[in-house]
Amino acid sequence: MSTRTETDYLGHLQIPSDALYGIHSARAKENFPDSTPFHIEWYQAMGLVKQACYLTYAEMVQALKEENLLPKEYSFIPNTIIDALSRAAGEVHTGKYFDHFIVPAIQGGAGTSINMNVNEIITNAALIHLNHKPGDYQVIDPIEHANIYQSTNDTVPTALRIAVVRLLTLLEELINNTRHSVESIEKEHRNSLRIGYTQLQAAVPSSYGQLFSTYSEALSRDWWRVSKCFERIKVVNLGGGAIGTAIGTPRYFVMEVVKHLQRLTGFPFTRSENLNDATANLDPFVEVHAILKAHAVNLEKMASDIRLLASDLTGNHLQIPKRQVGSSIMPGKVNPVISEFVVSVAHKVYSNDMLISNLAGQGALDLNAYLPAIGHAMIESIKLLIAANQSFAQYLLNGIEIDVDKSASQLMFNPSITTALLPLIGFNKAAILAQEMRKRKIDIFEANRSLKIIDDDNLNKIVKPNNLLKLGFSFHDLIE
Amino acid sequence: MSTRTETDYLGHLQIPSDALYGIHSARAKENFPDSTPFHIEWYQAMGLVKQACYLTYAEMVQALKEENLLPKEYSFIPNTIIDALSRAAGEVHTGKYFDHFIVPAIQGGAGTSINMNVNEIITNAALIHLNHKPGDYQVIDPIEHANIYQSTNDTVPTALRIAVVRLLTLLEELINNTRHSVESIEKEHRNSLRIGYTQLQAAVPSSYGQLFSTYSEALSRDWWRVSKCFERIKVVNLGGGAIGTAIGTPRYFVMEVVKHLQRLTGFPFTRSENLNDATANLDPFVEVHAILKAHAVNLEKMASDIRLLASDLTGNHLQIPKRQVGSSIMPGKVNPVISEFVVSVAHKVYSNDMLISNLAGQGALDLNAYLPAIGHAMIESIKLLIAANQSFAQYLLNGIEIDVDKSASQLMFNPSITTALLPLIGFNKAAILAQEMRKRKIDIFEANRSLKIIDDDNLNKIVKPNNLLKLGFSFHDLIE
Amino acid sequence: MSTRTETDYLGHLQIPSDALYGIHSARAKENFPDSTPFHIEWYQAMGLVKQACYLTYAEMVQALKEENLLPKEYSFIPNTIIDALSRAAGEVHTGKYFDHFIVPAIQGGAGTSINMNVNEIITNAALIHLNHKPGDYQVIDPIEHANIYQSTNDTVPTALRIAVVRLLTLLEELINNTRHSVESIEKEHRNSLRIGYTQLQAAVPSSYGQLFSTYSEALSRDWWRVSKCFERIKVVNLGGGAIGTAIGTPRYFVMEVVKHLQRLTGFPFTRSENLNDATANLDPFVEVHAILKAHAVNLEKMASDIRLLASDLTGNHLQIPKRQVGSSIMPGKVNPVISEFVVSVAHKVYSNDMLISNLAGQGALDLNAYLPAIGHAMIESIKLLIAANQSFAQYLLNGIEIDVDKSASQLMFNPSITTALLPLIGFNKAAILAQEMRKRKIDIFEANRSLKIIDDDNLNKIVKPNNLLKLGFSFHDLIE
Amino acid sequence: MSTRTETDYLGHLQIPSDALYGIHSARAKENFPDSTPFHIEWYQAMGLVKQACYLTYAEMVQALKEENLLPKEYSFIPNTIIDALSRAAGEVHTGKYFDHFIVPAIQGGAGTSINMNVNEIITNAALIHLNHKPGDYQVIDPIEHANIYQSTNDTVPTALRIAVVRLLTLLEELINNTRHSVESIEKEHRNSLRIGYTQLQAAVPSSYGQLFSTYSEALSRDWWRVSKCFERIKVVNLGGGAIGTAIGTPRYFVMEVVKHLQRLTGFPFTRSENLNDATANLDPFVEVHAILKAHAVNLEKMASDIRLLASDLTGNHLQIPKRQVGSSIMPGKVNPVISEFVVSVAHKVYSNDMLISNLAGQGALDLNAYLPAIGHAMIESIKLLIAANQSFAQYLLNGIEIDVDKSASQLMFNPSITTALLPLIGFNKAAILAQEMRKRKIDIFEANRSLKIIDDDNLNKIVKPNNLLKLGFSFHDLIE
Repeated sequence: MSTRTETDYLGHLQIPSDALYGIHSARAKENFPDSTPFHIEWYQAMGLVKQACYLTYAEMVQALKEENLLPKEYSFIPNTIIDALSRAAGEVHTGKYFDHFIVPAIQGGAGTSINMNVNEIITNAALIHLNHKPGDYQVIDPIEHANIYQSTNDTVPTALRIAVVRLLTLLEELINNTRHSVESIEKEHRNSLRIGYTQLQAAVPSSYGQLFSTYSEALSRDWWRVSKCFERIKVVNLGGGAIGTAIGTPRYFVMEVVKHLQRLTGFPFTRSENLNDATANLDPFVEVHAILKAHAVNLEKMASDIRLLASDLTGNHLQIPKRQVGSSIMPGKVNPVISEFVVSVAHKVYSNDMLISNLAGQGALDLNAYLPAIGHAMIESIKLLIAANQSFAQYLLNGIEIDVDKSASQLMFNPSITTALLPLIGFNKAAILAQEMRKRKIDIFEANRSLKIIDDDNLNKIVKPNNLLKLGFSFHDLIE
Repeated sequence: MSTRTETDYLGHLQIPSDALYGIHSARAKENFPDSTPFHIEWYQAMGLVKQACYLTYAEMVQALKEENLLPKEYSFIPNTIIDALSRAAGEVHTGKYFDHFIVPAIQGGAGTSINMNVNEIITNAALIHLNHKPGDYQVIDPIEHANIYQSTNDTVPTALRIAVVRLLTLLEELINNTRHSVESIEKEHRNSLRIGYTQLQAAVPSSYGQLFSTYSEALSRDWWRVSKCFERIKVVNLGGGAIGTAIGTPRYFVMEVVKHLQRLTGFPFTRSENLNDATANLDPFVEVHAILKAHAVNLEKMASDIRLLASDLTGNHLQIPKRQVGSSIMPGKVNPVISEFVVSVAHKVYSNDMLISNLAGQGALDLNAYLPAIGHAMIESIKLLIAANQSFAQYLLNGIEIDVDKSASQLMFNPSITTALLPLIGFNKAAILAQEMRKRKIDIFEANRSLKIIDDDNLNKIVKPNNLLKLGFSFHDLIE
Repeated sequence: MSTRTETDYLGHLQIPSDALYGIHSARAKENFPDSTPFHIEWYQAMGLVKQACYLTYAEMVQALKEENLLPKEYSFIPNTIIDALSRAAGEVHTGKYFDHFIVPAIQGGAGTSINMNVNEIITNAALIHLNHKPGDYQVIDPIEHANIYQSTNDTVPTALRIAVVRLLTLLEELINNTRHSVESIEKEHRNSLRIGYTQLQAAVPSSYGQLFSTYSEALSRDWWRVSKCFERIKVVNLGGGAIGTAIGTPRYFVMEVVKHLQRLTGFPFTRSENLNDATANLDPFVEVHAILKAHAVNLEKMASDIRLLASDLTGNHLQIPKRQVGSSIMPGKVNPVISEFVVSVAHKVYSNDMLISNLAGQGALDLNAYLPAIGHAMIESIKLLIAANQSFAQYLLNGIEIDVDKSASQLMFNPSITTALLPLIGFNKAAILAQEMRKRKIDIFEANRSLKIIDDDNLNKIVKPNNLLKLGFSFHDLIE
Repeated sequence: MSTRTETDYLGHLQIPSDALYGIHSARAKENFPDSTPFHIEWYQAMGLVKQACYLTYAEMVQALKEENLLPKEYSFIPNTIIDALSRAAGEVHTGKYFDHFIVPAIQGGAGTSINMNVNEIITNAALIHLNHKPGDYQVIDPIEHANIYQSTNDTVPTALRIAVVRLLTLLEELINNTRHSVESIEKEHRNSLRIGYTQLQAAVPSSYGQLFSTYSEALSRDWWRVSKCFERIKVVNLGGGAIGTAIGTPRYFVMEVVKHLQRLTGFPFTRSENLNDATANLDPFVEVHAILKAHAVNLEKMASDIRLLASDLTGNHLQIPKRQVGSSIMPGKVNPVISEFVVSVAHKVYSNDMLISNLAGQGALDLNAYLPAIGHAMIESIKLLIAANQSFAQYLLNGIEIDVDKSASQLMFNPSITTALLPLIGFNKAAILAQEMRKRKIDIFEANRSLKIIDDDNLNKIVKPNNLLKLGFSFHDLIE
């Protein structure tokens, strides 16, 4: 394999001639022998951030020129180079060259290796665009040029915020989609009676509509929550440099770069009022991920309920779609694999949540060195939640069928139905009725016929869905 | 010890004659041999919830009377009993009889034992008020009377929300208080120069004011976060009964009881639009606790920073107040015990957060049976955070002293100060200057005198706080 | 209230005259405004450790005297004082004076406040025994005398290990007890057929005996695990002083003190070969707690299974004992409160496990400052597991009843029973049989009579428990 | 793209003609839209398990033939097919065809999709070996042939155990390697004096040797721990079928298959005495992972210590090797990236630990459906720990340099050195000496010269390493 020699102040290293990464990436790869793939969404957002920086740079030079403010001693980067860098950054933004991103997800440093791998890719791609060879750093330099007015500590977290916001937008949409699936079950089964269970024991009458309405409400909250996340992470520290003081960075750049970010992303990102804070503290990620966790909790609850209701153990009143063959020995067996996938995702989110808060708490002084692990967990969680919603709605909820008659009949055989008569006949008579049903394994109609507690028509009226499912009783009704 | 016999449908039990708890509490105590104390704040809130129910009951009966709507067959509780129950509930609200609350914090059931212990205390206290003896349940019955129109599943979570809201109000105040302490350090040391560190290595010039401003911003977010929690848990399910359908409960009661709650608490609690949802789903607790976790993360970060800066290892530029003797062998030793207390609290909050989301995800169908463990963890976290803020602000932050001169001098000796000259002299000259400082262990002034890179006056101006700490440089300044 | 004045090098403080705690405890109480009660088991073990130190001291002085090795300049503590301290320490060991232990469980410092509160109690109790008043520290001093040759950093973790070992001994016994309960169900129901479920779907025939045998095996592993914990934490650092170097401590004391510990506890504790290590590293607690977590996982699994099998949802083939009234509205309702208690305990253990490893990882250099929080969580977990086992075995397992006929009949109606015929009739015929059973909702006998696939006698033989439950089939049997 | 049609009882699907996966894999891929890569180690172990099954099958048929026990009705798989399957399984074992393994790591089902993807790959590879086309399942069938006498529920966890054991063997070696690195520092710096710190405050004299000895001991425990893991997971359930009852499996196969496993792996795996237990319970994974967590805790502690000691904040007494350029603005900056990598790994392990125990606790009845997520986390943790040890030893520990003189001198200037004189001069004189050192910022020699507390020669002797670092003092020494 043909190679080129690259050099940093620690020494030399051979790099494959056509590699777009360079010495910094290669050292990082050696230092961190992990194989967890880095998320492409973060890589792409790095391209976008870099592009915003180059565009701001070009604009600034233009403005300085117009105002005759170009200091002689200060050396500026030629337009052709800035343009080539900008073009390369745009390519990174589309996901191009990702196979040259060789740094693993779990790494030391607050993202230096991420930033340098991207800088090297952009530099070498730009070199190629200008008909130079990769590694001709005397023409374009990964640090002096590609990283101009930037720092790991402002570009990498800014890119993370962009990646997160974009994924959250998709998640928001998919949660809403799941909510729609739930709502259509809710509407269809508004009056499909079932036993309501507390602590897995029969309690009082309910309906599938009511049960699915609890899911629908939970998903509404989730939707609202996710939609509120943007304002929590829209504040970026781009322009702040190593610790937010923007030392060595022109004020023009600091003031203008975020506007380019807004334009390129279409999202109203804003520059932090306190760039030191935005660099040192990662609590907004803790908060946003914790909010996602509330959604994961709701997903687990729903998926577990459906798994339980679709279980052979509980009489199959609810049937889930057959998505894959479940057993080699029992041909008809359908396993609740989508529910299990969703539960697995929820627990991945819980454990990521723990990781994020623990590492966010370990920031020290002006920076938190654990941004790569935190960012990886953030993106992983959102992508998993997107996958879970997609699978849950499309492959599970949309195919659910409920055996309405079996379920309603089960309620009529269950002593808990007698609670509906309490206002009318009081506790003691209701208990006698329940006892009769339990003893003889008969339904409430037969038990009432045998005990003659209220007249049949009245009973029929009382156990109708519209009566059973209304909120509380009215004394008017009792008196009539 | 003199005893009385109590009976439920499982059998009889001897209860101490003067005990205000009864058979249900005694069975629970036996079933759950845990010794973790139950939080009095939740107990007190149970008293308030019960009182709201009795007041609503009395009001309803009065209204029915006025409208001639009292059904004959329906037996109402006499006013004297309702009044006595209301008085006893008010006493519970003040914390009275807490020594008769014998149920431990860790328990099975969704709070049945909490509800019944409170019912029994209120009943027996009411009996005493009416000159009866504890246990005379034919006069006042813990279920038929004290629990009228209530369920464990609506009273216990409603009381939890009340307890949480009240504690959050106090926490909000204390976070603000901590923020004030931080701000006064920030203001005092706005221009107190220090080395800025990234990854614990010297990076670029900064000030203590900038560092403490990052704390101040984080605490502002925390304050705002906590202030937003109320709207997340203000929605209660009181009136909803076992699963939110309010079966067996008069609609009047369902509609009116929350108004009494508002009046008694002074907080605008609202009845859930979907009582089934508010009964089955505990994601709002997950969300609120997760938000608290973001605050815990910030506390840990700040406390760890201060512990590090106050360490003998780092040269004691920052001194913390002496709060207790640290060592029997080293008399002058002062340990950072307040920081360690705060870090310990933060980690208790992290682990409670995990507990809450895991158990919240394990709700099943119409109810989550793990409310007691979840509620206990919620209240514990908030109380610990209150304690941490109190201790942190009063015993640590308010007594911090910074050795301004030593810190500024350290910066002038550190090569990182040369980054301030980058725009003026460029990277290469700055590197030479840094090298000279490093090699000869001299400060920037001496190095510059020796290398004559810029004139002394200019250097003096550049390393002044007002110049070092401004955001970015202006090309105007370079040209002048 | 009458008070006395106490003094340390930070100043003076008023202490109630009859308080056995002193200024150090009072300062700690103020510094750490937490209210979590400290575990008495740890307090008692502190008494034991102190007693071992005093006995060693007395023995050493006696030995020096005999060898004429008493240096003149070195001042020794008089026997009467050592005896009085020893007596007071013995009282602390019994739990006496615990109401004078005012330091909360969550605190800063590596246990200084624990050690000093105990030193003060022992000193003041000893003073009273010698007819002095509490606070007469010129006679007996909490540091100079009560803490002689000790440090927080060796006494507090040593006491923790003692407390843990004692509680583990009890836990071991109770796990074995649970195992016995499980085994008797296993034996009774060895041949009680049931459907085996995978992923909550009917899979292949099984028996309750087989199911309970999985619990029994798991508990056997747990028992073995807990029994192996002792060797992991038997190594103590007593005698090592602040960081394990025993500076200022006579070598005699270092060498002999653990022998007294052995004698007083009856456990073969050993002195660490590397006292620095035993002081700095808390990984043995991480390991021991993690082992306990494996037991908690098994408890959760078993408790959840039983809750599910005893649920109204699943047809009540298994019935759990009625332990407390479950509902005010549904009189017969029995909730699985013991299962829920056990699950709650398991999750408390999981969250403690997270706390312990996170804080254990945050030790710094020669000490881990978070021992109090770690120790509290350790003891809490073991006590909760003791409570869970006690309740689980006694109140749940011992009263379980299984409806053997209903369960066996359910199996015969379930198509999964046809898997038993696979070796004999092959997959295709078995599938046809299963299809017939499913379609007509009939049992295997009726389906076979209708389809005449094998002769009835043979079928009867095959579905007998002894055949269904044997491990694999033999070709001998097929050929016969 | 050319395709073939595959069919299962849910319908048809088009599969690329040359794909070795089939319809079951394709359905799974659609159902679980996750992109987390599956660990190749587990895939390879699946190949091995399958091979063991085919070899056992062939052996059994041979044995039956010899004993004339081949039942006529029972159809056996021809030798050529078994051989082809065995060859293909062997290829899977080498990692071949991994690009045809399309199922993601996070999935529903207890591993059905893993098992079926492997079955399909093996089947199609075997078909090609026999000059058939992929998809010719009438010749070789993925279920009837490739899965013969197997179940997801015994092959997948058995393969996991094999993958884990192999990785643990490597981890064990690497921990030992790290320990060697630590030991050589320990030996070199046995007498390199330093201040011992507790709670980050100077406490008593120590040495770098003592500090590194604490690491060495911790790693010894870790080594021992990992070496003990094998006996915890060596018990496999292969042969047990769906739930461990081996229904439909010849007893010969059940009895013999593990021997082939032993032979192929070279590890003494054993068949569980209770296959139901080994199928239903995953607590051994909880235990093994928790043990790994203790190692992660030790890694975090060491890495954090070194990061702190190598920090610019603490005076750089310890220097770490330069592994990559740390900053674009501060050329000489060396960041502790290896330490941060190790800490990040430790926290990944902590969060995996939480995931594993939570999901292990959610097993239900005869199976735990979350094996894929649990197994993925297990393997991820071990691989990360391997990477961390490799990087930690090779890139960090092996290049550490300690400034021995600076450190020893710092100790002589620190008042904590006076604790060495306590036995000789008592507490009061030592305090005066310490006070003088502190006030005048002088070392102990100068302070003693000024105060003349002991003679210089004696002082010199006392502060020599051999005296300072010995365990405790002897009264003999005092008297002499």
